[in-house]
Amino acid sequence: MSKAVVLVSGGMDSCVTAAMARTTHTPAFLHVSYGQRTERRERQAFEAIADFYGVRERLVVRFDHLAQIGGSALTDPSIPVPEDGAALLHARRETESAAAARIPVTYVPFRNAHLLAVAVSWAEVLGATAVYIGAVAEDSSGYPDCRPAFYQAFQQAVREGTKPETHIALLTPVIALRKSEIVRRGIELGAPLHLTWSCYQEEEVACGVCDSCRLRLRAFAEAGVRDPLTYRVPVAR
Amino acid sequence: MSKAVVLVSGGMDSCVTAAMARTTHTPAFLHVSYGQRTERRERQAFEAIADFYGVRERLVVRFDHLAQIGGSALTDPSIPVPEDGAALLHARRETESAAAARIPVTYVPFRNAHLLAVAVSWAEVLGATAVYIGAVAEDSSGYPDCRPAFYQAFQQAVREGTKPETHIALLTPVIALRKSEIVRRGIELGAPLHLTWSCYQEEEVACGVCDSCRLRLRAFAEAGVRDPLTYRVPVAR
Repeated sequence: MSKAVVLVSGGMDSCVTAAMARTTHTPAFLHVSYGQRTERRERQAFEAIADFYGVRERLVVRFDHLAQIGGSALTDPSIPVPEDGAALLHARRETESAAAARIPVTYVPFRNAHLLAVAVSWAEVLGATAVYIGAVAEDSSGYPDCRPAFYQAFQQAVREGTKPETHIALLTPVIALRKSEIVRRGIELGAPLHLTWSCYQEEEVACGVCDSCRLRLRAFAEAGVRDPLTYRVPVAR
Repeated sequence: MSKAVVLVSGGMDSCVTAAMARTTHTPAFLHVSYGQRTERRERQAFEAIADFYGVRERLVVRFDHLAQIGGSALTDPSIPVPEDGAALLHARRETESAAAARIPVTYVPFRNAHLLAVAVSWAEVLGATAVYIGAVAEDSSGYPDCRPAFYQAFQQAVREGTKPETHIALLTPVIALRKSEIVRRGIELGAPLHLTWSCYQEEEVACGVCDSCRLRLRAFAEAGVRDPLTYRVPVAR
């Protein structure tokens, strides 16, 4: 099997993406800490998932610049993480353009381009033939850098901006799935969902009220599966 | 005038690009140190150019990951910087595809995608309407991430991967120029070429024999202008 670089944040979507990737490729796991609030906990989840799968090739990268640039509740401590669930309602109820007009404050400007750039550089040096990223488009917060059109354009940039002998496919196997389908696929594949971390703001016990916790809890509820994590607030299971 | 983020490495091409950018935009200068051999000297050149133009908004970013990934003579000390001028001969004499098959070992895999990602994130937060980069395509070393097709694809990724209200034009005003024309344009615009640094391997006195020095010296010679820098080896002026 040829190698693939898999971006593993430590969350549920990237964990299931990794589970899918290893059915066809030898995975090399890449994790990026970018000054987000929960970077310690996410890195711990990354290492636990990599250990679970016995992944030998791992690269952990630390960015300072996204926190220097700011502009997001995840990287600027002065911008609170929303707890009212508004972003979810927007993402579900509105037309695409109206929802797009209200990008949540947890959007980290153009973040996924940075993650892909690292993945592609590493893939080029490793001779890997694919980069996997667990972006989710529809059933999520509406970040512009999670949409299929962004990955299509970036794929073309990879084709043009690397060596002629380099051929790297950008793969987003969960992009069109509902989050509940991601939970189900993860369980089918035996993915270690108990090792993942999704909360945007807590590192010990998940808050249960940030957008990321709400999306995760709804996904498990819809899938009819108990989320193995512990939450600070009482949550419907 | 609206703001533009200008990537300023400290070299001649980005200095002239900055001189062009400030005729139409208020420039915000961005510099990235990525573990390249001459990062201290390049940063010094960046600050000197920014001081020369009185640029107030400056961002200096430090990457560790490109050196972690390696794969280039610029970021891996075990790979020597070529001094034989072969890359220049290839870039000039061969057909595009044959030249492309011999990307120089100074190519840093997919580097310019990383630089653009930082520039775009910062531009989005600043509300800037343009990003300038001093890439040179034809009359240079043949790096794939310096070609117009790469910037066209990346422009599309910027369009798709940022907020709907964000509109950032990627501008490459020197991409099609010969290096000698860049020297002439710089002199016309009063650009501080004496403050720039191009050498790939030395930080005190330029070596005169790496590809970057050779390209620069040839450019000044063709332009009929004396290069204000001092070189270690005797050079034709």
